Amino acid sequence: MGHNELCLDKNERSCDYLFVSKGDETRSLILDQALAQASEVGLEALSIGGLARDMGLSKSGLFGHFESKENLQLEILEMAAERFVQQVIVPALKEPRGIPRVRALFESWLAWERSPSMPGGCVFMAVANELDDRPGPVRDRLVAYQRDMIEALVTAAGIAVSERHFRPDADPRQFAYDLYSIVLAYHHFSRLMDDPDAEARARRAFATLLEHAAVGGE
Amino acid sequence: MGHNELCLDKNERSCDYLFVSKGDETRSLILDQALAQASEVGLEALSIGGLARDMGLSKSGLFGHFESKENLQLEILEMAAERFVQQVIVPALKEPRGIPRVRALFESWLAWERSPSMPGGCVFMAVANELDDRPGPVRDRLVAYQRDMIEALVTAAGIAVSERHFRPDADPRQFAYDLYSIVLAYHHFSRLMDDPDAEARARRAFATLLEHAAVGGE
Repeated sequence: MGHNELCLDKNERSCDYLFVSKGDETRSLILDQALAQASEVGLEALSIGGLARDMGLSKSGLFGHFESKENLQLEILEMAAERFVQQVIVPALKEPRGIPRVRALFESWLAWERSPSMPGGCVFMAVANELDDRPGPVRDRLVAYQRDMIEALVTAAGIAVSERHFRPDADPRQFAYDLYSIVLAYHHFSRLMDDPDAEARARRAFATLLEHAAVGGE
Repeated sequence: MGHNELCLDKNERSCDYLFVSKGDETRSLILDQALAQASEVGLEALSIGGLARDMGLSKSGLFGHFESKENLQLEILEMAAERFVQQVIVPALKEPRGIPRVRALFESWLAWERSPSMPGGCVFMAVANELDDRPGPVRDRLVAYQRDMIEALVTAAGIAVSERHFRPDADPRQFAYDLYSIVLAYHHFSRLMDDPDAEARARRAFATLLEHAAVGGE
């Protein structure tokens, strides 16, 4: 049963929300497809025409949803950032403060990197090098999301210090850099290099990092 | 004095090498420009027409040099790989085996990442995510160069073990992954994030990595 069939009142205005809802559904399907493609080919190679063709929609219909390629790119990043929060940050916040939460962040971040909705891996990493020399609102948005994400890592490491799971002299910002570097390398070795040991290497690097930061570690 | 003035013999055939040499010079200037651009915008966004415009050359002239965009992309990677060997590998080989050589590799790799000939940073990192989901000869070439480079890191770490600078149980392949991850993060934090502390963080991560691998380290 489509949304329109639910609209018993023939007064258009009162049914607006149902039409909006149907539009939102299409929009969300388009964004899913666009995110999947962006994880593989980046944001520049995306085209509204190409997406319309892939989805059997009219190009003008897609333009109606996003108005410009830049808007489409911004919405892809926004949707991915929301999902990252839901899939990586929120589950970690449910874990006890300190090392369990840091471990959960790492585990859910690895799972995110392998998410079936992004066949090319984490979209933020997939487009980082494409955008780093392209000033503009899309780069700004990516940087803002990356900053939030790095701050979440710094905060989690800082809590591990205050919970006395990490040594008092552990540097949360260095920890965040080191953790980020492990996941970047996981992306690189598993994607470009097709290295079957990439995950084992990432896990071993993380274990060493944790050992080094933990109370009693060196 | 141009090459042509050196050509005293008017027999065209015997002067071929001089014309080739002049062609090589132009070709090398084009490749310099193409490498600089690729470090910023990647290999896909490059166009022979755009390069011709930027350099005030005819498009057909450029096509004469490279025949196809794919050839141009392959030659950029080839030139960059040769320079990487000259600027990163060869200087390290002049250092004593063991930790001094590993340190030299890291230092010259950081310098490479900041090379003025690549305003967007290391071209291999700049194009890695662009190519990881694009099967074909350009991806294959990039992967082959990256493999050589990773093997050079593994070898240097293996020598540090056999020189007893590293602990006997240090894993050269894990060391290469960890070292690679530090430089990937340096690229990411300095380029995309404009983080003024990126270099200090990379150096601190490297010091910790070395400490962990070194005899007497934990």
